[in-house]
Amino acid sequence: MAKAPVLTPQGEDFPRWYQDVVAKAELADNGPVRGTMVIRQYGFALWERLQGELDRRIKEAGADNVYFPLLIPESYLRKEADHVEGFAPELWTVTHGGGKELEEKAVIRPTSETIINSYFSKWVQSYRDLPLRVNQWGNVMRWELRPRLFLRTSEFLWQEGHTCHASEDDAREYVIRILLDVYTDTAVNVLGIPVLPGRKTDNEKFAGANASYCIEGMMGDGKALQMGTSHDLGQNFAKVFDTQFSTEAGDRDYAWQTSWGVSTRLIGALIMAHGDDNGLRVPPHLAPIQCVVLVVKDEEGAGERGRLISEELSAAGVRVELDDRVDTSFGRRATDWELKGVPVRIEVGPRDLREGALTLVRRDTGEKAQIPLDGLHRRVSDLLEEIQRALLAEAEERLRSRTETVATLDDAREAAQTGFAAIGWDALGRDAGETMLAESGVTVRCIQRPDGKLPLSFDDDDLIAIVGRAY
Amino acid sequence: MAKAPVLTPQGEDFPRWYQDVVAKAELADNGPVRGTMVIRQYGFALWERLQGELDRRIKEAGADNVYFPLLIPESYLRKEADHVEGFAPELWTVTHGGGKELEEKAVIRPTSETIINSYFSKWVQSYRDLPLRVNQWGNVMRWELRPRLFLRTSEFLWQEGHTCHASEDDAREYVIRILLDVYTDTAVNVLGIPVLPGRKTDNEKFAGANASYCIEGMMGDGKALQMGTSHDLGQNFAKVFDTQFSTEAGDRDYAWQTSWGVSTRLIGALIMAHGDDNGLRVPPHLAPIQCVVLVVKDEEGAGERGRLISEELSAAGVRVELDDRVDTSFGRRATDWELKGVPVRIEVGPRDLREGALTLVRRDTGEKAQIPLDGLHRRVSDLLEEIQRALLAEAEERLRSRTETVATLDDAREAAQTGFAAIGWDALGRDAGETMLAESGVTVRCIQRPDGKLPLSFDDDDLIAIVGRAY
Repeated sequence: MAKAPVLTPQGEDFPRWYQDVVAKAELADNGPVRGTMVIRQYGFALWERLQGELDRRIKEAGADNVYFPLLIPESYLRKEADHVEGFAPELWTVTHGGGKELEEKAVIRPTSETIINSYFSKWVQSYRDLPLRVNQWGNVMRWELRPRLFLRTSEFLWQEGHTCHASEDDAREYVIRILLDVYTDTAVNVLGIPVLPGRKTDNEKFAGANASYCIEGMMGDGKALQMGTSHDLGQNFAKVFDTQFSTEAGDRDYAWQTSWGVSTRLIGALIMAHGDDNGLRVPPHLAPIQCVVLVVKDEEGAGERGRLISEELSAAGVRVELDDRVDTSFGRRATDWELKGVPVRIEVGPRDLREGALTLVRRDTGEKAQIPLDGLHRRVSDLLEEIQRALLAEAEERLRSRTETVATLDDAREAAQTGFAAIGWDALGRDAGETMLAESGVTVRCIQRPDGKLPLSFDDDDLIAIVGRAY
Repeated sequence: MAKAPVLTPQGEDFPRWYQDVVAKAELADNGPVRGTMVIRQYGFALWERLQGELDRRIKEAGADNVYFPLLIPESYLRKEADHVEGFAPELWTVTHGGGKELEEKAVIRPTSETIINSYFSKWVQSYRDLPLRVNQWGNVMRWELRPRLFLRTSEFLWQEGHTCHASEDDAREYVIRILLDVYTDTAVNVLGIPVLPGRKTDNEKFAGANASYCIEGMMGDGKALQMGTSHDLGQNFAKVFDTQFSTEAGDRDYAWQTSWGVSTRLIGALIMAHGDDNGLRVPPHLAPIQCVVLVVKDEEGAGERGRLISEELSAAGVRVELDDRVDTSFGRRATDWELKGVPVRIEVGPRDLREGALTLVRRDTGEKAQIPLDGLHRRVSDLLEEIQRALLAEAEERLRSRTETVATLDDAREAAQTGFAAIGWDALGRDAGETMLAESGVTVRCIQRPDGKLPLSFDDDDLIAIVGRAY
């Protein structure tokens, strides 16, 4: 008899499946204030691992971490016209401190361009101070009408990078470098999610930017998720905050700036790109627990053997967890580790041990194999690499098979019901076509060039629009 | 001719010296909203290193990281009477979100006991769920009348740990474990600051705790700085949030809880415990840059040699920075690295190289030595350990020589003008004596037992009070 599913099946109701995974794998819970989120131990362990991978790449790209205040005086936001227009409807406002009304209201940062520029204007004096590259890990708040854990929350955790450069070219190069070397590399090689890098349409760009670039991933239901953005701010903020420097030639110029960020949203991407009806499937490069050693029963030395195996794997650099809670049923524990998406499970039971063997279970395929005790850590290390590749390959196959090249707006709309459409930006009718698509909940996810480079302008006539429904 | 000092000398004006160091070493700056702080690159690098050391020890103590929302509904704070009384005057209040007035006002967390307990009450059902140990890295806000960078800021970064236990004994043991194995160990072995662990008087304990324990360090001017606290919360929060569990015996009981935290204040401790008239002196175990390789002039291969030396040291696990900005004067760069307190400086110049040598400078003592090129990385590694020991020894000597054992309240008050007094808690007159001391700005920093253990009660008659002026 088939057991009742722990989760709503994906095919039945994908959004409900998502909610079930978040709850049952104990990733997060709703906070008491509208749209806020409690990130639980396992959810946070995923985020911490991801943070570490991103942070290393951000530092390699030359940015240093800093911390700017949570509260921004309201007047700062108003200085850049597009910026305030974009963010005003989403702000959370602080009116009182220490029991008294503040002289000037403050907002909880929705992003930090304004407050950071007010310091950049002091720190940047000469071309010798450039490039200036900083990054901040922290919380931000933006009002959300329809909150969803990890995907859209009023408060979220993220990193925001902010840089100043001596030339437009240098700034543009850095925007692209972050998009490719930091965000795309982490998405593909850590999260195992293939992404489409591209440029946002003017309609979708960041409030205050000249150009926004993004990476878009395809989720299990064929919908798009924006997984990271990188903005070319030109001199917009530098001009209103007077961030000027003396050039090598002895002139004065405003700094050329960028900003870029990814957030806890990426945990939503992880869930939806790899999850199946049994729960999460975490790629080994990300997994806080890569291998669980599950003691079936503590008989005939299975408990002791489990401990030894854990130690062996741990010494070989595998992130391992020993589960010897034999007072809880084996089935329940196995189901729980499946829910949490731990890539490899090793079952240590008296029956196998009698034959000098163990049972090895792959989370991605569900395959079980009896294996000898000898040479275990090499086998596990190899299998982890194999699973990492397999999860990426599976997601790549979905992206390929569910992206349709089309020639008309109607066909693009149709293709977007199950995946992405790739259509000439001109054939779509550019902004006018974008507006028409929006009526049926379909958006232009990004604009690409046929040569794979990122479009620095919209002037070319061979641009391609990637169209889809999105989270 | 003596050059003009970059910093106000400590002996002339210690608080001003502190401000100068924070500004000149580019550690932090004031934020635009009252009492907030911008932590700059080097200041944040110090904090990140400290975070890493603390985080590892916290995890070893069995706590997992989580994230709870920034905003707490006002009503949550009101549930625990002592807690709201303690924190109400310091709260920052959010009244609007998304342009509309909130149904219930929210406060920016001053600490998270209340919101965390509202989830603990759901998560804790049985003794099998205990102990439950979580930790959170984040920002909190408390109104400050007299803000001071790192030491007292309206917003600060910290970690707050929160745990539930099945028995009072288990909770108490954990409070002490955190104080000793995490906080004391980090203070002594990473920050190089000897601390006095003890118990806070009832007057100084955390709002809502049964007992608060702390570690107190002595700064360069003889004043005390509370460097970390760990609270025995009893069942106070569990009762008001109904955090109950079924015991092994089948009864129901409220969880026994602890909370504990350290903050960016520790950067203030670092500055004031080790700094001298030339700036910071960072202990090598903490230092983001342990050794700077300073190319004096790029002549006779000095630049190339500097690069090779950096690579050699880096490969040997030393955190090294190459400074080959030879277009800036050598003196200015040397002064800057002194300001930043980098423990070891290696000067690579053509004159030394001609003799197959380098110049090695210790930041802590200022000693310079010409050393051979051979065997450099071992010499540097050894010297780093030596400096770590020397800085701790120096701080220990200060603590010892400036702590006076006295027998009367008047003598305690007198001794507190230059350091600490140790006086019998009874001889001081207990709470009444504490109140009298407060009139001259002197406080009881902590209560200790003569056997070195932490006092679980105030009933003993041989308790010792450590008395001093404090930050």
